Amino acid sequence: MKAIELNIEKALYFAEGKFNDNKDAAVEALTKVEEGTGAGNDFLGWVNLPSETPAELLDRINATAKRLQDNCDYVVCVGIGGSYLGAKAVNTALADNFEYYYAPNPGEPKVLYAGQNISEDYTAELEKLLDGKRFGIIVISKSGTTTEPAIAFRILKEKLEKQAGKTAAKDLIVAITDASKGALRTLADQEGYETYVIPDNVGGRFSVLTPVGLLPIAVAGHDIKKLVAGAVEMENSTKHSGDGNIAETYARMRNALYADGKKIEILVNFEPKLHYFNEWWKQLYGESEGKDHKGIFPAAVDFTTDLHSMGQWIQEGERTIFETVISVAKPAVERRVPSDEANLDGLNYMAGKRIDEVNKMAELGTQMAHVDGGVPNMRIVLDSLNEHTLGALIYFFEKACGISGYMLGVNPFNQPGVEAYKKNMFKLLKKPGY
Amino acid sequence: MKAIELNIEKALYFAEGKFNDNKDAAVEALTKVEEGTGAGNDFLGWVNLPSETPAELLDRINATAKRLQDNCDYVVCVGIGGSYLGAKAVNTALADNFEYYYAPNPGEPKVLYAGQNISEDYTAELEKLLDGKRFGIIVISKSGTTTEPAIAFRILKEKLEKQAGKTAAKDLIVAITDASKGALRTLADQEGYETYVIPDNVGGRFSVLTPVGLLPIAVAGHDIKKLVAGAVEMENSTKHSGDGNIAETYARMRNALYADGKKIEILVNFEPKLHYFNEWWKQLYGESEGKDHKGIFPAAVDFTTDLHSMGQWIQEGERTIFETVISVAKPAVERRVPSDEANLDGLNYMAGKRIDEVNKMAELGTQMAHVDGGVPNMRIVLDSLNEHTLGALIYFFEKACGISGYMLGVNPFNQPGVEAYKKNMFKLLKKPGY
Repeated sequence: MKAIELNIEKALYFAEGKFNDNKDAAVEALTKVEEGTGAGNDFLGWVNLPSETPAELLDRINATAKRLQDNCDYVVCVGIGGSYLGAKAVNTALADNFEYYYAPNPGEPKVLYAGQNISEDYTAELEKLLDGKRFGIIVISKSGTTTEPAIAFRILKEKLEKQAGKTAAKDLIVAITDASKGALRTLADQEGYETYVIPDNVGGRFSVLTPVGLLPIAVAGHDIKKLVAGAVEMENSTKHSGDGNIAETYARMRNALYADGKKIEILVNFEPKLHYFNEWWKQLYGESEGKDHKGIFPAAVDFTTDLHSMGQWIQEGERTIFETVISVAKPAVERRVPSDEANLDGLNYMAGKRIDEVNKMAELGTQMAHVDGGVPNMRIVLDSLNEHTLGALIYFFEKACGISGYMLGVNPFNQPGVEAYKKNMFKLLKKPGY
Repeated sequence: MKAIELNIEKALYFAEGKFNDNKDAAVEALTKVEEGTGAGNDFLGWVNLPSETPAELLDRINATAKRLQDNCDYVVCVGIGGSYLGAKAVNTALADNFEYYYAPNPGEPKVLYAGQNISEDYTAELEKLLDGKRFGIIVISKSGTTTEPAIAFRILKEKLEKQAGKTAAKDLIVAITDASKGALRTLADQEGYETYVIPDNVGGRFSVLTPVGLLPIAVAGHDIKKLVAGAVEMENSTKHSGDGNIAETYARMRNALYADGKKIEILVNFEPKLHYFNEWWKQLYGESEGKDHKGIFPAAVDFTTDLHSMGQWIQEGERTIFETVISVAKPAVERRVPSDEANLDGLNYMAGKRIDEVNKMAELGTQMAHVDGGVPNMRIVLDSLNEHTLGALIYFFEKACGISGYMLGVNPFNQPGVEAYKKNMFKLLKKPGY
């Protein structure tokens, strides 16, 4: 099978007319993305990024990752939003569900995250964990002055210099930032940190396939060449309009449903490892489309867990919701339901089946129930969870997001609303100039 | 200050008329809850549960917890929905943010969760973690036949018996189930497990203050007497209608906003430890109100993290959202923003301030920005994060949920839609009788 397949049959049923009507709009939107003729076209660097990523860059990232792996038991990634979610999504999807419970092995540091909140307890507890430990820092910020990562980096840099010495610390800090300007660029050059560049034409939420995501993913031990290769495959298959362009199809279907009054989209997984992938998706779509008082509200659920919490609302609440399921065809490990002589729990009818077969029947049974209940359902199938499929999935959602935003009539590449709270906060904190 | 305060000023502004109009409906709804005169009145056991919990029950739970703590490095709680989320919420709120990264100490086992999904990888990876380890099981299920926990329990029971021996295993398994009927009751009695009873008149999502939540919380080392005492305080202050009844006020405000077209409520925290508390809340409200094609869609965000993902939509997307913020007045640990001579990041204006002060200004700045942008804002303030305030907060939300559901005109205590997917799944799996 292909790395990714998309099935819209159970959604089309609800809005076929509107889907057929928006073909021209989709072609126009795709052209804007491919040819850079739409609003926000100075942020289209992600479109051809996978195929244009030099092998030398990936080799250098791998070498940096190796250096951090060899010298650290913990590597803290400092960043927020697009400088956090992409790496967290991929690293969680590819890790053991219980990875945290194992002590770090030599050459296999634990990847931690900081600067994605302003919690005093989180900061202090992170410092406690790192007390006396061999650790390194990847600091990710275009400007170097974003409040959350700036505070975290100040504290962690001070701690690292105290524990490892100022000279050694320099080799344990890597900065991913602007090519030439900004506070972090200045600091990194002064201190002599190794640096990577965040391209000017790639916005935060589209940056996971730049060093922003690639370095933390490589440090966690994953194959970034396969990740990029998966994205290249998707890049190539979504350049032109037509049935084979599943990014265009997804964009059309969700816009048709939205026009039909479906205001909420839930991204559904049946593998808990995909939890943070859903979070990454929420930023991508929420920040790209939630403007001008419009846009689908992106929400996420982990099934079957959340069938026992949000399931009732989805089945019988307001009929303003549709769902997009990410299904993983093959699990990584094989485990079957054991037989039990007494069979008091009545489970012997499934004894000998793979647990995943039960999961798949839950998925199918849920689809039937939700469609019956008035919830349109799209289904994305990944062959298995690996770097290649995740790379393809990332690019799929990015491309579809660009198309979808243009179809909606917004600039999918700005985020004017994100500044509002910051301005108030700076005023309250009496930041000079506010 | 009180354990909990509620401020609705910044929401009232948007729907004062509808709020004033629903006073009588609230009184009627509260009466239904207190006097058991509404739909679903056979599930009101939670209303006076805190004040009626015998001290002997709490003592016995603590003794059981001590036995598990003394004999286990890992205790796996097997349950889903209401048999999972309450304990997970409280245990996460009271733990170190990095608790997972520490090896278990003698007498302080790690509490793990299973049976809340059907992931084959999750199951296999949990078994790998438990290989050769001293572990125990708390299995929580009214019937003992719910698919997810039944599969997990079969597998874990088999593993424990293999590792510890069948005799020793019996003392390491505790069952929380029906008083007299069902598969798990039968099994527990046959095997001689210690058992606790899930009261017939308390539904899953209202069960955290029964042994369902209390035992896993006690095993994690938290003070369940303080938790219950906090709930008793809230029980006493929410019996009667009036301004001092913050559960009634919250129920009225959210119903007024919903009547005014606000279809989505986000529960907001500024402390990552509260993430699972928000998940617990989503079940409570989603399952209680999402029926008859109505009900507010409950969603959750962790700020400031998600200000950099969902912030744009909230600020400028469809104007159909309101937010309820849980604010924690005092952090547990003190940490200040350090000064830096070079000040390249420009943060010195906040040097010497507590990090939490920055967090609080982010909270206030966000409130101002969102209210300006058309997002009504309610604010719940906890004095600090501890057993007492969490007990009060749990009961507050439960009571408000009962009132709110009756005001909406639904039966807040059933969940007819949850069965739909299960029936399909059983049919697909060829379960006898389907």
